Amino acid sequence: MHPLAERVLQGDVRAAARVMRLVDDRAAGYVQILKDLFPHTGKASVVGITGVPGAGKSTLVDRLIEHARKAGHKVGVVAVDPTSPFSGGSILGDRIRMQRHFLDDEVFIRSLATRGAMGGLSRSCGDVVRVLDAFGCDVVFVETVGVGQDELEVTRTAHTTLVVVPPGGGDEIQAAKAGILEIADVFVVNKADREGADAQVRHLESMIALGREIASGRAQQPTSHGHGHGHVSRSSVESLDVDQVRLGDASVPASDWTPPVLKTVAARNEGIDALVDAIDRHRAFLASPAGARRRRLQSHDQLLALFKDVLADAALSAVRARFDELEPAVARGEVDPYTACEHLLAEFRRR
Amino acid sequence: MHPLAERVLQGDVRAAARVMRLVDDRAAGYVQILKDLFPHTGKASVVGITGVPGAGKSTLVDRLIEHARKAGHKVGVVAVDPTSPFSGGSILGDRIRMQRHFLDDEVFIRSLATRGAMGGLSRSCGDVVRVLDAFGCDVVFVETVGVGQDELEVTRTAHTTLVVVPPGGGDEIQAAKAGILEIADVFVVNKADREGADAQVRHLESMIALGREIASGRAQQPTSHGHGHGHVSRSSVESLDVDQVRLGDASVPASDWTPPVLKTVAARNEGIDALVDAIDRHRAFLASPAGARRRRLQSHDQLLALFKDVLADAALSAVRARFDELEPAVARGEVDPYTACEHLLAEFRRR
Repeated sequence: MHPLAERVLQGDVRAAARVMRLVDDRAAGYVQILKDLFPHTGKASVVGITGVPGAGKSTLVDRLIEHARKAGHKVGVVAVDPTSPFSGGSILGDRIRMQRHFLDDEVFIRSLATRGAMGGLSRSCGDVVRVLDAFGCDVVFVETVGVGQDELEVTRTAHTTLVVVPPGGGDEIQAAKAGILEIADVFVVNKADREGADAQVRHLESMIALGREIASGRAQQPTSHGHGHGHVSRSSVESLDVDQVRLGDASVPASDWTPPVLKTVAARNEGIDALVDAIDRHRAFLASPAGARRRRLQSHDQLLALFKDVLADAALSAVRARFDELEPAVARGEVDPYTACEHLLAEFRRR
Repeated sequence: MHPLAERVLQGDVRAAARVMRLVDDRAAGYVQILKDLFPHTGKASVVGITGVPGAGKSTLVDRLIEHARKAGHKVGVVAVDPTSPFSGGSILGDRIRMQRHFLDDEVFIRSLATRGAMGGLSRSCGDVVRVLDAFGCDVVFVETVGVGQDELEVTRTAHTTLVVVPPGGGDEIQAAKAGILEIADVFVVNKADREGADAQVRHLESMIALGREIASGRAQQPTSHGHGHGHVSRSSVESLDVDQVRLGDASVPASDWTPPVLKTVAARNEGIDALVDAIDRHRAFLASPAGARRRRLQSHDQLLALFKDVLADAALSAVRARFDELEPAVARGEVDPYTACEHLLAEFRRR
């Protein structure tokens, strides 16, 4: 075993910080450390928190940390921040976030920056969560900024994903909300002392009910889903069907878990107990036979994402010279990009 | 040449719609059609519009379409929507968006859904833009919902990217704004009749000034950038350095284009002329020798993204059986995911 892995398992905080840095930089040897840690993971409860900007996610996470600390848990926090293009560092940063918990020895906060547009965030996030898990954290909160695809990927790391929305909101907020509906295990209408909170709850509940109706219709006609049919890599709807078939469970509707919709006022510490209860109930659901499908789907998607990332790294190392040769020709319009990619792929497979 | 490609080049709207559907579904033969169209692309001006939810992007796009139509341009619109997990269709949809232009024969609107979390959106978006370009659109607007990584990828397709923000906004909006600063060619403070518009303009201008300062410092010490050093695929900062070296241009600062910050009130059609002027100036900059580096960087990143996508498709088709064998073992914790990916990669390269 790598000496750093050993120290992480002994609860050495400096070693954990160092390993997380190695993971983040994908420095030489980090994969071996992760392999060493892997058998010691799976104990932490991982809770993802996402939602529209302005919903008060940070305050809510703050309250959840407080709650977990009172219960005597060792807490990890992964804060996914957009990177500043200027400083190269994250915008929110460890320093200005969650200051109240900064000096608590049993709360470990790690910022994870979203760098450039070339992806890999999901992989880094999953790896950092595994380190915190092996390090002995009982619960790990993964908080994101924003409502994009990125957040979908990151929260895939979580056992339970909270989607936080404020009361009210315009069309775009409604659309963003719908986009993340898919990943919500628990809905939280935060700032529930504001006007429109009950309307927001009703709106979410009716969307969930509609979703269950359509999903149960779909389960009866499993071939009727639209896009991505016959195409393994693109549609999580299809992955769902694939798993359903593989698990011999085609009659089970899309979910046996109906996301509850809870109201909180995080700033005043209201509704947090009920929220923690809902998180615990979801965790119990996952551990039950009915939750097996969801667990499998998640594990499937995680492995797929990691494989794509590993693949891209390997291919780019192998055919970089050819890429650098073809790229200017594509830029000049002499070679079309599809043909260029076919050449690159052929070369990678030949080598 | 594929008969559909021929009809697209003749301006046949049904053929264009059909090809865009094939592209979106990645149906058999679509790559050949794109290859046929490729030599006829590069004429359209592609304008990306992104920003924080609630900034009024849709209204702004509406005004830009109106402006382009008055100038006699044939207009394409790609609206990137989060998919409804229930209906499988996009939330906003062609039908309810841009209704005013729906009956205009020279405006072609195509929704592009973000499906699941497995990516590929950037590729589809680029391909759809190419079809609209070959079809004869003079300008193509690519509008996104949200502020995530996804949007960064999509706007990479654009020559000129507008980042739209409302006046004011809390910490999270500030952070989201910073995250997309990197991709802005033009900043638009929309709803500028509201309080805080001038403060927002000043804030953006000082961020841009700070960015230029740091960037010129960086150009003098090209090895001092932090993350991703020695790692080709992750950091666009590094790609920048790579290109800088390759283009023999190491003394040029990060950008010769300073993003202007403009105020608009799209709802009242105010500030649109000045915005269109700024877009035109940016396009002229790109065509100049000073804009060459930016064009090359974009072309580099586009090809890289396409290659990764093509690679993932090929690998998953090739090793699907082995993946399905390993995945349950990983789910049970018998094999760690890193080792599983190494096996899959080795098998793909052997075959």
